[in-house]
Amino acid sequence: MTELTHIGPDGRARMVDISGKTDSERQALATGRIRMAPETLARALSRDTKKGDPLAIAELAGIMGAKRTADLIPLCHPLPLTGLKVEITEAAEGSALQVSATARTTSKTGVEMEALTAVTVACLTLYDMLKAIDKSMVIEGIELVEKSGGASGDYRKAKP
Amino acid sequence: MTELTHIGPDGRARMVDISGKTDSERQALATGRIRMAPETLARALSRDTKKGDPLAIAELAGIMGAKRTADLIPLCHPLPLTGLKVEITEAAEGSALQVSATARTTSKTGVEMEALTAVTVACLTLYDMLKAIDKSMVIEGIELVEKSGGASGDYRKAKP
Amino acid sequence: MTELTHIGPDGRARMVDISGKTDSERQALATGRIRMAPETLARALSRDTKKGDPLAIAELAGIMGAKRTADLIPLCHPLPLTGLKVEITEAAEGSALQVSATARTTSKTGVEMEALTAVTVACLTLYDMLKAIDKSMVIEGIELVEKSGGASGDYRKAKP
Amino acid sequence: MTELTHIGPDGRARMVDISGKTDSERQALATGRIRMAPETLARALSRDTKKGDPLAIAELAGIMGAKRTADLIPLCHPLPLTGLKVEITEAAEGSALQVSATARTTSKTGVEMEALTAVTVACLTLYDMLKAIDKSMVIEGIELVEKSGGASGDYRKAKP
Amino acid sequence: MTELTHIGPDGRARMVDISGKTDSERQALATGRIRMAPETLARALSRDTKKGDPLAIAELAGIMGAKRTADLIPLCHPLPLTGLKVEITEAAEGSALQVSATARTTSKTGVEMEALTAVTVACLTLYDMLKAIDKSMVIEGIELVEKSGGASGDYRKAKP
Amino acid sequence: MTELTHIGPDGRARMVDISGKTDSERQALATGRIRMAPETLARALSRDTKKGDPLAIAELAGIMGAKRTADLIPLCHPLPLTGLKVEITEAAEGSALQVSATARTTSKTGVEMEALTAVTVACLTLYDMLKAIDKSMVIEGIELVEKSGGASGDYRKAKP
Repeated sequence: MTELTHIGPDGRARMVDISGKTDSERQALATGRIRMAPETLARALSRDTKKGDPLAIAELAGIMGAKRTADLIPLCHPLPLTGLKVEITEAAEGSALQVSATARTTSKTGVEMEALTAVTVACLTLYDMLKAIDKSMVIEGIELVEKSGGASGDYRKAKP
Repeated sequence: MTELTHIGPDGRARMVDISGKTDSERQALATGRIRMAPETLARALSRDTKKGDPLAIAELAGIMGAKRTADLIPLCHPLPLTGLKVEITEAAEGSALQVSATARTTSKTGVEMEALTAVTVACLTLYDMLKAIDKSMVIEGIELVEKSGGASGDYRKAKP
Repeated sequence: MTELTHIGPDGRARMVDISGKTDSERQALATGRIRMAPETLARALSRDTKKGDPLAIAELAGIMGAKRTADLIPLCHPLPLTGLKVEITEAAEGSALQVSATARTTSKTGVEMEALTAVTVACLTLYDMLKAIDKSMVIEGIELVEKSGGASGDYRKAKP
Repeated sequence: MTELTHIGPDGRARMVDISGKTDSERQALATGRIRMAPETLARALSRDTKKGDPLAIAELAGIMGAKRTADLIPLCHPLPLTGLKVEITEAAEGSALQVSATARTTSKTGVEMEALTAVTVACLTLYDMLKAIDKSMVIEGIELVEKSGGASGDYRKAKP
Repeated sequence: MTELTHIGPDGRARMVDISGKTDSERQALATGRIRMAPETLARALSRDTKKGDPLAIAELAGIMGAKRTADLIPLCHPLPLTGLKVEITEAAEGSALQVSATARTTSKTGVEMEALTAVTVACLTLYDMLKAIDKSMVIEGIELVEKSGGASGDYRKAKP
Repeated sequence: MTELTHIGPDGRARMVDISGKTDSERQALATGRIRMAPETLARALSRDTKKGDPLAIAELAGIMGAKRTADLIPLCHPLPLTGLKVEITEAAEGSALQVSATARTTSKTGVEMEALTAVTVACLTLYDMLKAIDKSMVIEGIELVEKSGGASGDYRKAKP
């Protein structure tokens, strides 16, 4: 059975030793959604403001949040991000905003958590920006879509 | 129409001025889930380790993450948390772990974002702890269940 | 002679004891500028992008930076900001962007440093956003314009 | 038997709910030592530098470290420090530097952890400043000397 | 005489220039203790809780604290930790908990401070978790046991 | 026309992808000034304190601030500083303190922002240390003097 690499043989939490791994280019793509009432969505999409808007602020918050990943996730290794992009668009289905984040690094370990953290911080920021008009929004569908690079090989989520 | 309080009349992002509000006791409850394969869930629930386990570590990460809310969410006010509890249990339905977080403060503004941040950081940590055996987990259903205190009154999410 | 309150009678650095002070509403306004070539300024002001632009990102960075003031300035007291606004506009004179920040709190000590930190982080962010086209920009004129509240009374900078 | 307040009745870690407590003035004094070879101590005490010296830098690091207490100690409440002083002197006995820190706040909970964190960060900084000439230094005797304020009453450590 | 590498020839504090060094694998082991009354120790060791216990929480806090080393210690270089383990056990002698931390990196500089920071943050967390039943605990014996890698060669503390 | 590299073709903010770049040694020098009344300057320069003084504290704050650059500047890449020095002296002209900072790294991107951040945090700290005696100080002349290393080549600011 595959082992839980964060838990050592003695049951203690540990930051897994990756000293023996070599640096390689790695990339990860994660997505998520925040579902909201149609009028909330219309408001978010209106971008009726010249200099700031919920989507742009949430994209930026996602980028900045990704840089805090190792501070937030206890057993994550700190790693030097070499690229990060967050994109928020109207979801193809339903009344929702779709968030996607691509993270890149050249490192001994992957950037899945950085991509997932970018998505969740962006979703939380959208919630914060819009909660004055709608408290019933739901964040959902946060998942890793694909990753590449590293010894464990590439991963691409199977379509449902 | 209710205004987006984070965006001022001139379209600029701003941290809303709450100087005129009075301190009051406030509480918020948020929940979320991370869905996973049954064997992953069994593994997470086995807690076959004496001193550490994914659930306990994720609960702690959620508590610590809530203390970073104002660092992560651009327009959130910093506030002194007076209580924080995160609880992870097997979800009542489906193959998932259920996360709930209760945040409390005595402050001029609410703790909804702190409760939601606790839930998402706990979910991200569960993902990180278990991703070696299952990368297809999905974080979902992150929402505010209820809040109390403050001028805007109490809120309780309608049951679907 | 007025004492340097951060240096105790024995010469040691210290975070000044403000335990005996009472909470009061306080506000501070600081301003600064970043001077640049006319074509750089034109580019910054073009805002030819739908969702992000240097000014909006710098305004947000200024707000977030102000929340880190006590982390950055060694002897600053941590305090709960109750409002923060950063505004970037074309300077009235010369080829420059003008940054102004207003900070508010209800606290035992003032928010001058928070307002000044917001201005400088916004200026640094503008530099970072525009340095690919102009490395010769200069940040200047960072000063406290006025402050109110607190035992030491109000202050308004004399016009030159 | 006195309960471990950080562990709830169900065994989960939690940030204890202090919402019902009232703000009061609180103070704590902690001390510690770093023992080193006599020649290392002589070097540290020489302060043969005009603008910086290991003791001054460590005192400042202790002050700044205390402001990070709630970031470091998982179940600590964030609180607004109202005063912090760190003092490093030659120890009365043995070849060592003595560190003491006094922390103050007006809050619902005590500042013991802030005082202890200030002492340990100062000791770690001394180690870092001096380790090029002596790696065998030992940090010891870190303890709470006294605290005052709060419902649990004053505490003063018994002399051995 | 060996120089204090953090203090430049002009007496100013500085982050030592390590640009010319090559990356190499480095490891450090540090230990420490927290001494407490026998009944406190019994309580800590009872681990009578299913999901959380002082030792597990302190181990995790030590790991997370190590990631903040460069934030806390003024002249420490930021470095990418490649492994971190903290172990808390009953001390072989006396009534105490023994903490040990092993840190690893591939970097231009060593991880002694990261290992020492992990130990001290774990000790502080134990203090925090247990102080409701015993305020007289003492943190002691924090020292570097051994380090390997880097130009300055290996180090192993002499047994007393 | 040179592109604004932080803004992608679709107008979104992004952390530029530098994955394809190679690590190289890079250095940057930035300077700035804080202008003040002659008596304030005399006081700052008196260094009449044995263990702490405004200049030494500000130099240290500049070093520590540089380590937070990627936390403060939204689209900055995190990078491992390999050297940092901050120097504060009496300005050659006028009544002012002159701050200069040299930053070094071996990385895929430059350290201009780290050097500029060090200078501004040092200036803000000087303001904070001296504001009890003079609130009218002005921070000015913050600029990049030169940088070397990296694909874009060396830069040296033209003398006016």
